[in-house]
Amino acid sequence: MKIWVYDQPREVARETFADYLDPATTAVISIDMHRGHLEDSPDCPCPAPRARDVVAPIDAFHRQVRARGMPVVHVKSVLRPGGEDDLRGIPAAWRRTFAQHVGPIPNADAHALEGSRWTEWVTEVLPQDWRVENKRRLSAFYPTDLDFLLRNQGIRTVVFDGGFTDCCVLNSAFDANNHNYRVIVLRDLVRGTDDHLESAALSMVSLHLGLVMDSAELLVTWRG
Amino acid sequence: MKIWVYDQPREVARETFADYLDPATTAVISIDMHRGHLEDSPDCPCPAPRARDVVAPIDAFHRQVRARGMPVVHVKSVLRPGGEDDLRGIPAAWRRTFAQHVGPIPNADAHALEGSRWTEWVTEVLPQDWRVENKRRLSAFYPTDLDFLLRNQGIRTVVFDGGFTDCCVLNSAFDANNHNYRVIVLRDLVRGTDDHLESAALSMVSLHLGLVMDSAELLVTWRG
Amino acid sequence: MKIWVYDQPREVARETFADYLDPATTAVISIDMHRGHLEDSPDCPCPAPRARDVVAPIDAFHRQVRARGMPVVHVKSVLRPGGEDDLRGIPAAWRRTFAQHVGPIPNADAHALEGSRWTEWVTEVLPQDWRVENKRRLSAFYPTDLDFLLRNQGIRTVVFDGGFTDCCVLNSAFDANNHNYRVIVLRDLVRGTDDHLESAALSMVSLHLGLVMDSAELLVTWRG
Amino acid sequence: MKIWVYDQPREVARETFADYLDPATTAVISIDMHRGHLEDSPDCPCPAPRARDVVAPIDAFHRQVRARGMPVVHVKSVLRPGGEDDLRGIPAAWRRTFAQHVGPIPNADAHALEGSRWTEWVTEVLPQDWRVENKRRLSAFYPTDLDFLLRNQGIRTVVFDGGFTDCCVLNSAFDANNHNYRVIVLRDLVRGTDDHLESAALSMVSLHLGLVMDSAELLVTWRG
Repeated sequence: MKIWVYDQPREVARETFADYLDPATTAVISIDMHRGHLEDSPDCPCPAPRARDVVAPIDAFHRQVRARGMPVVHVKSVLRPGGEDDLRGIPAAWRRTFAQHVGPIPNADAHALEGSRWTEWVTEVLPQDWRVENKRRLSAFYPTDLDFLLRNQGIRTVVFDGGFTDCCVLNSAFDANNHNYRVIVLRDLVRGTDDHLESAALSMVSLHLGLVMDSAELLVTWRG
Repeated sequence: MKIWVYDQPREVARETFADYLDPATTAVISIDMHRGHLEDSPDCPCPAPRARDVVAPIDAFHRQVRARGMPVVHVKSVLRPGGEDDLRGIPAAWRRTFAQHVGPIPNADAHALEGSRWTEWVTEVLPQDWRVENKRRLSAFYPTDLDFLLRNQGIRTVVFDGGFTDCCVLNSAFDANNHNYRVIVLRDLVRGTDDHLESAALSMVSLHLGLVMDSAELLVTWRG
Repeated sequence: MKIWVYDQPREVARETFADYLDPATTAVISIDMHRGHLEDSPDCPCPAPRARDVVAPIDAFHRQVRARGMPVVHVKSVLRPGGEDDLRGIPAAWRRTFAQHVGPIPNADAHALEGSRWTEWVTEVLPQDWRVENKRRLSAFYPTDLDFLLRNQGIRTVVFDGGFTDCCVLNSAFDANNHNYRVIVLRDLVRGTDDHLESAALSMVSLHLGLVMDSAELLVTWRG
Repeated sequence: MKIWVYDQPREVARETFADYLDPATTAVISIDMHRGHLEDSPDCPCPAPRARDVVAPIDAFHRQVRARGMPVVHVKSVLRPGGEDDLRGIPAAWRRTFAQHVGPIPNADAHALEGSRWTEWVTEVLPQDWRVENKRRLSAFYPTDLDFLLRNQGIRTVVFDGGFTDCCVLNSAFDANNHNYRVIVLRDLVRGTDDHLESAALSMVSLHLGLVMDSAELLVTWRG
């Protein structure tokens, strides 16, 4: 089975990671594939344009996941419309720090506001999918009920796709690891700030947190 | 005030980050500076040799922090001696994944076992310091009482030093950010797996999580 | 100031509990005042008929709270419509245990299902109020983001009203206490399973967790 | 099988609660059986004298539990010696509220201080038992790593014995329930503030949280 270790392909015996590979106890977690990151518009409040490339491939992967009877969980940031979670409370750090890198973000104040178009999903979300819609900062796990949900469903392995490999995806992989889930990050279905940080984040995952794989390889591996 | 943004120095106005800079509500969090990472011996169970270089500088920085009346919190991994937290339960991912990168880690089974010499502090820990001694995986926050402690003491800013910039330090910075602490990571007082991942982790902090600073600069800034 | 200690009125000096009484850092938390508990209908899925008596008094109290510029937080149980949080996962204990006491609960399976009429608020919820709508079991705090919200808003005292004094209210008071909020439960604005358990739960609050007060007395006390 | 529902014995079919009764996924949690509650001395910092009666019976029960190869977890309050968790931070509510009921508690400031004799176990703690020694307030679960431990060991049912039925035991039963553990409280091996609150707390458990049983009955039931 091919995994990626520190940005290099590596053939490993499937048995070495057998506990990562049981479809019956696996869920796919798709992070922040919403209009507020992905819309191609100057007023996109928190642009992650590189992730647009993976919208169609993620949809295709999820279809295969559902066809196997496995759950897809969509997680996204939504903030209370009055600003209590952020601008009118303790503001999220990225508002000032990311702006040091990319310059002012014109419409950042509209980011993730409940009820706004910016919270609409861009990827396909079907009725049987599970949704977690109160991510408030970077992690899919805190302060949401994702862990409660996964645990209640007997999930032991989480497979991540979606947005900002070096931010929300990496953070969620850390959290999943700390909660003793087996972690897989899909190299072809995540996108980071840029190539450099994306690659570095995947290297960190591969060293400390779990497996970095291509989605096609994982599908083959699940077939057994 | 000089900060580092994506590995480059940047001069910013102190007022831009005034809420990060109040010594009265700041604690320094020192991560995993224990013998199990730092001892120069072939049976060191989880070697992080690069962090040996910062033992003396961290001690010197902590002395100045204490002299200002500010708290130093030492956090370290300790696992129940019977293995219930790890080897005899759901084993930590790094045992298999990090070994893909560095090869077999001969004495890894002894890592962090309660009561063993591997849990001894290498940096100076004084009676007035605070200690969190049940980190079980990578984060200083989960499943420990660090948040309970900081909150009870009215802490709003956390300053990180210590070990594995791209692992436990980065994970703890993510968690601190999600709990709405203001985050500062000290570039000269943390060490990562290697130069590349260390630099990338600091870049991620600087973009998404908070400030990357040199310790000397922070001391000057605190002086006001 | 009059408080209730183990079901008896007691006059105490306001200064003894001064840290409980600052309106500027206080929020009112109203628990589970929804149709699924309160509707007077044979298919009410989880009947708490005694709490119907406090709907109007709670609304009146909240109006005064808002008039002071203080926040009202409405928390309620909502379960994913597919049953993943409960019936199709690990079912909530009360389904079998409460039925030992009251007999079969005919429509219990419909309890709290997202999108159903059973989740509609019965008390007045205004746009400026805060809502927490993913309570999954008994506590208002886990696995919701209530603590994240309160903390972000600098809240230090929580005042509880609403339903099942000896269940969700008591559980939430325990959790608030463990997170070091100052706790006040409003004796006239909560209702329990029956008089006996309601009184016992208030006695427990008064001994271990915080203040039991009448809402009129609290309003007077806030006036200072 | 005999359970207690709202203080009355009830015969129920074992199959109704089959998921509560698998010894292979059950742990016994013993709460706060330490000298600071149990010592018969005027300077006992937080007296719970009624619980002295269950020391020997708890020890006897634990011996049978261990003989079955099942884990016993001892949880107790320990506070950092400098007072950061309590008196020199946000003080625990009970210090003022419980004193309204029983009058001044002379040596309360010494309660649970790390390194003091008050934290010594009174019940038998064997090397193979698991220990959780950083309970800070009332719950055995927060901010400790009890959930991390139980989950890592595949535990699904928790059986409680120990001290203050209407306080730490009840709070821990609520938390266990919210985390979807199956909960059993042993009626003969817990003690509350007084008969009235003890009985009421057990009634609450029996209605909302799980099973109230006698320890002898549970042992018989486990035999199958």
